[in-house]
Amino acid sequence: MPVLKSSEATVTKVKEGVERKLIHAENLMMVVIDFTNGPWSEPEPPHSHVHEQTTYVASGEIIFFCEGEPDQRLKAGDMFCVPSNKKHTIQLLTKEVRLIDSFNPIRQEFLV
Amino acid sequence: MPVLKSSEATVTKVKEGVERKLIHAENLMMVVIDFTNGPWSEPEPPHSHVHEQTTYVASGEIIFFCEGEPDQRLKAGDMFCVPSNKKHTIQLLTKEVRLIDSFNPIRQEFLV
Repeated sequence: MPVLKSSEATVTKVKEGVERKLIHAENLMMVVIDFTNGPWSEPEPPHSHVHEQTTYVASGEIIFFCEGEPDQRLKAGDMFCVPSNKKHTIQLLTKEVRLIDSFNPIRQEFLV
Repeated sequence: MPVLKSSEATVTKVKEGVERKLIHAENLMMVVIDFTNGPWSEPEPPHSHVHEQTTYVASGEIIFFCEGEPDQRLKAGDMFCVPSNKKHTIQLLTKEVRLIDSFNPIRQEFLV
């Protein structure tokens, strides 16, 4: 699948107010995540995964929390990076947020 | 470098009207590329690299060309994927375009 047009993409509802769509190669996955359930009064519980992650904040504002690092308030145009197995989470500061997440290797569980 | 704030990022001028900034883990790199020299009357010459690539069109419109695939007109919110060693290129249709490229492995030549 070389192209994913937003208007034609399969949208997966992760939970109320959280949707994703994705494209991937063999070892690289890119995921658009749309949140519409912000702002949050506190962050989600931290999680970790073996996959390396990079994220671009396409719209909205968040706080990014990463184990051993100072909390960071990020807005559209900012990026963050999560090393393999590092605990991290976010807190939404605006009602709507769009994040562009990339993962290596691919998140097989997202393909189910 | 877990966070790259747009306002503080090192911006690399690739050529006139093309700038990039990037963040990376060990095997995953994410690059924001800002073009301000569009529209183009024709695509750039096709190129290829061993790195897998995924791209999110953050703003503007382009045509995406990929070896063996039909040309695709893409706009903000669309994505494309380039397998390892596949020839590909783009043509800008608007003056300004922002692409979010991810690569696995990282583009070492971008770190020079």
